[in-house]
Amino acid sequence: MRMNELSRRSGLPVSTIKYYLRERMLPPGHATGANQAVYGEEHLRRLRLIRTLLEIGGLSTAVVREVLAELGSSGAVSRRVLASLRTPQVAAHQGERDDQDDVAAAQVAAFLERRGWPADPDHPAVRTLVTAVRAARAAGDREFADRLDLHADAALKAVEAELAALAPVERAGEVLVVSCVLGDVVQSAVRGLAHEHLLGAGEADQSSAERGVPRVSA
Amino acid sequence: MRMNELSRRSGLPVSTIKYYLRERMLPPGHATGANQAVYGEEHLRRLRLIRTLLEIGGLSTAVVREVLAELGSSGAVSRRVLASLRTPQVAAHQGERDDQDDVAAAQVAAFLERRGWPADPDHPAVRTLVTAVRAARAAGDREFADRLDLHADAALKAVEAELAALAPVERAGEVLVVSCVLGDVVQSAVRGLAHEHLLGAGEADQSSAERGVPRVSA
Repeated sequence: MRMNELSRRSGLPVSTIKYYLRERMLPPGHATGANQAVYGEEHLRRLRLIRTLLEIGGLSTAVVREVLAELGSSGAVSRRVLASLRTPQVAAHQGERDDQDDVAAAQVAAFLERRGWPADPDHPAVRTLVTAVRAARAAGDREFADRLDLHADAALKAVEAELAALAPVERAGEVLVVSCVLGDVVQSAVRGLAHEHLLGAGEADQSSAERGVPRVSA
Repeated sequence: MRMNELSRRSGLPVSTIKYYLRERMLPPGHATGANQAVYGEEHLRRLRLIRTLLEIGGLSTAVVREVLAELGSSGAVSRRVLASLRTPQVAAHQGERDDQDDVAAAQVAAFLERRGWPADPDHPAVRTLVTAVRAARAAGDREFADRLDLHADAALKAVEAELAALAPVERAGEVLVVSCVLGDVVQSAVRGLAHEHLLGAGEADQSSAERGVPRVSA
């Protein structure tokens, strides 16, 4: 297809596609003349991948370029690039350091120990957990850390299913990247729906009273 | 405590605290003179709540102000404000509309039907799911929609536990808001750890070959 059709089918302006070509995020088309080229389905698929990572994943152009470069050269992705796909690291608690920081760090370390997961306190995900536990405790939710296992059971099941689904798929590296990004997005959307479902639609007061959950006004 | 101590203990500059006072996000202190006031533990707690919503939740000042106003007046939060805490809505697929959009929409509708969850196609979370399913299919992951139930089972368990934990807690509205925000953050961090665990640390090739998952380079 010509550039115009690629633009129409992808929904992207020609100028955006040309930018991706210049940045080598999109491979060149097959030249058919001095200033003409044709593009195939693989170009359309690559454009969809770029937009998924940028718009759904919220990644920066620099990270997307790095991911595409790895996929292009080996078809696989490194651990480092996989980690760069995750939600940005949450800043550590800014206030005066007090014993609550130590309590939160100890609770997260105990959780990691129970799971048999590596317990590097400088791992961005581990730091995020400590920050979250500390914030929850400060807000009065002192059992937040006990519920980390629920989150972990859930995450393990979902990620296991994701990885198992990848095995027979062509372009598994690409699918791994996409499912990393989409899994987080879907988990958040489904959590929102679960919240609404449990708090009761249109009968919030009655059902929340029955369940002993806090009242939510309509 | 005086403003200086509030600043030291919260880790926030005096100018930031004064901004929150002007914006009525922080209640005034108890006046002890023409230009002096003292602050209590409730001010420190409110500052922590503000920072949690802004920094961990990534919410805008406008949304935080609205949440605090509701908590301040009734101690409860409305469904509308709860929804505003969720991750921003993902834009719909931009390209030419094709039968893949319909397939994705039908798969999400079938998922919602199975769960007995309200199936409004204009619900932001529902639109996010359709966009994610479409993107996953375009990338070659055609069973993505089948795994939505896994995500939903996981989310239900986690949210049920969260809501049950709130029941006996003072200031349940505040805790509900915090746990909404922190739940998403924790889920994402734990997914990252689960990924690393399942892909094997330092033995990626062997364990991934055993499990039939794609190779990840070190």
